[in-house]
Amino acid sequence: MQNFSFQNTTKIIFGKETEKEVGKYTAQHGYKVLVHYGGGSIKKYGTYTKVINSLEKAGIDYVELGGVEPNPKLSLVQAGIELARKEKIDFILAVGGGSVIDSAKAISVGYFYDGDVWDFFEAEAKITEALPIGVVLTIPAAGSESSGSSVITKLDGMYKRSIGSNLIRPKFAILNPELTFTLPNYQTACGAVDIMAHIMERYFTNTEDVELTDRLAESALKTIIKNTPKVLANNEDYAARAEIMWTGTIAHNGLLGTGREEDWASHGIEHELSGIYDVAHGAGLAVIFPAWMNYVYQHDLERFAQFAHRVWDIEPDFKDLEQTAYQGIKKTKEFFSSIGMPVSLKELEIPEDRLEEMAQKATENGEIGSFVNLDTKAVLEIYQNALD
Amino acid sequence: MQNFSFQNTTKIIFGKETEKEVGKYTAQHGYKVLVHYGGGSIKKYGTYTKVINSLEKAGIDYVELGGVEPNPKLSLVQAGIELARKEKIDFILAVGGGSVIDSAKAISVGYFYDGDVWDFFEAEAKITEALPIGVVLTIPAAGSESSGSSVITKLDGMYKRSIGSNLIRPKFAILNPELTFTLPNYQTACGAVDIMAHIMERYFTNTEDVELTDRLAESALKTIIKNTPKVLANNEDYAARAEIMWTGTIAHNGLLGTGREEDWASHGIEHELSGIYDVAHGAGLAVIFPAWMNYVYQHDLERFAQFAHRVWDIEPDFKDLEQTAYQGIKKTKEFFSSIGMPVSLKELEIPEDRLEEMAQKATENGEIGSFVNLDTKAVLEIYQNALD
Repeated sequence: MQNFSFQNTTKIIFGKETEKEVGKYTAQHGYKVLVHYGGGSIKKYGTYTKVINSLEKAGIDYVELGGVEPNPKLSLVQAGIELARKEKIDFILAVGGGSVIDSAKAISVGYFYDGDVWDFFEAEAKITEALPIGVVLTIPAAGSESSGSSVITKLDGMYKRSIGSNLIRPKFAILNPELTFTLPNYQTACGAVDIMAHIMERYFTNTEDVELTDRLAESALKTIIKNTPKVLANNEDYAARAEIMWTGTIAHNGLLGTGREEDWASHGIEHELSGIYDVAHGAGLAVIFPAWMNYVYQHDLERFAQFAHRVWDIEPDFKDLEQTAYQGIKKTKEFFSSIGMPVSLKELEIPEDRLEEMAQKATENGEIGSFVNLDTKAVLEIYQNALD
Repeated sequence: MQNFSFQNTTKIIFGKETEKEVGKYTAQHGYKVLVHYGGGSIKKYGTYTKVINSLEKAGIDYVELGGVEPNPKLSLVQAGIELARKEKIDFILAVGGGSVIDSAKAISVGYFYDGDVWDFFEAEAKITEALPIGVVLTIPAAGSESSGSSVITKLDGMYKRSIGSNLIRPKFAILNPELTFTLPNYQTACGAVDIMAHIMERYFTNTEDVELTDRLAESALKTIIKNTPKVLANNEDYAARAEIMWTGTIAHNGLLGTGREEDWASHGIEHELSGIYDVAHGAGLAVIFPAWMNYVYQHDLERFAQFAHRVWDIEPDFKDLEQTAYQGIKKTKEFFSSIGMPVSLKELEIPEDRLEEMAQKATENGEIGSFVNLDTKAVLEIYQNALD
């Protein structure tokens, strides 16, 4: 186990009807709130009204900015910063999924910065101050509700880049599984893949002696694998929605990475995909992660065999660990397919003409990944393996 | 799953040599520190010197109060409050295990209170203010390093009672597994039982649909079961010590109880034991927990069978779940024995003459436990089952 420090200060308020308490929690941090959200679904399904009623009941003044898209865009962040300054906002309430939360985080750091907020994403500026943020989560996927990171897309040049700081960790996150009943199955499945990917990016490590976090990660994966088909079959299965929602937070609150090197190559490889083609992040990961696994698994057959056995209940063949390890990858891919996810670039209708460009971009700052270090050629090969 | 809120703000600093950073972290919270500790072991093994050097290097003024005993006593807490007031302390640094931390927590709330600090433990006063606390942990067991609770013993009448508040949750906890190399095997084993008990108090629940937390709890239990024999055989096995230390914190930081009713009857029953006979809390739990299990397991054979299968790798006998469930209890007891723990009152040399008195005291505020509600008669029967 490596030395580490761990602190996650976000207050989680979890359960039925908890969004009605958002005014109370917001009032602990701010008076003039920017309510940030995405498309029309929070209005269509009544969440917007419940949130606004709760804010008004708590005597909170607010302005709103909707329109956050999946793979949230820099341009809206810049508009949000301008609005927040004009309205003298002191708190941002993100009502939505990871895209909305990430957009709110970017606004929160840009608010105090004179230059272009993109400087933070290019590591040309350091985060020293941020507006406090709260969350009403409607999509379990990104884990952004208690993380200290944000991923934003700059359309000019199609860059997808991230920032990280404890200053952008939400003060509170309200998680009501009922708010996820109306998610389309495709989006639920994308979320499940994203959650699993967050766990697996931490699971595949070269750090020795990480038994507790291995087991916790396996627990989280099994929970997603068991409950995702349930909610796809019955969208209003509260118990299964709750398991997925809480696991989505645990997957990315930092706990599962304590004491271990993390990988994150698959996320980097996928970011170029969703940066250029605007595919859903989870769908992109469903294509990339198994292709990455196939490329790297020989590097540590024991770990991949453990994954196959403990997560997928594959009976180990001790005389043929490679076969055991391979079965785990096969099961992962089959599972993604079974929940309606694409597992090839072909299924995403992505042609092969820009693979080299993406591989270049993914590695423009050097090799990526730590389980196996990947150069441009390796990333290209993973894209090619993912073709069909 | 039940509605819940969860927040644990303690910053964990984990790993080799981390106690040398204590001055830096302390300086973030206070200038005049009370260094609180137990017997001579932190001086004997050099931890004291390293801590003091780090404080001095950070320019921190300090006074010290040693002498905390296992099952920490109200009298020392009262002396600590007096000293802290006289010296105008603004931060308490606990260097030790759960007893030292709990004693520090009690001092921290008593500092601001005009009456007797015991009033908090009798629920006759409400915690509204507390000095900030930091921890250098030397014994993985109580989980007090990131919890919001404290257990203190009042010798007059032999009462062992607890308080709980987010205000007494430590600001930081430094966990260096190397500091546990010198623990006697008996104390290591007591710690392992205490950690397992914290997990099992949450595991045995009537709340339905708690899959993630069930699995996380099973992971934590398996980690302790696998690593305790390793450290008993090789006291300086860093990897195994690290697994136990991190699991000890996770076991009691609140995560494993999210969304579920917890039980805590066994702790209540044990508290009367260690209140009167001053036995080590972990040793008392090793006696009481299996006796409690034997008393309650028929209440939910499926849960006990799951425990047997997932934690102890018992092959389920689907036609005889009672037998499967029973095997899990048997394994638990055998494990406690195998690591040198007593599993009967006889082994603790506790006679049967005061069992009724203890049963009365354990239930003086009404029935205890939530998995199965236990009245005085039930508690007495559990004590009697524990006799040999």
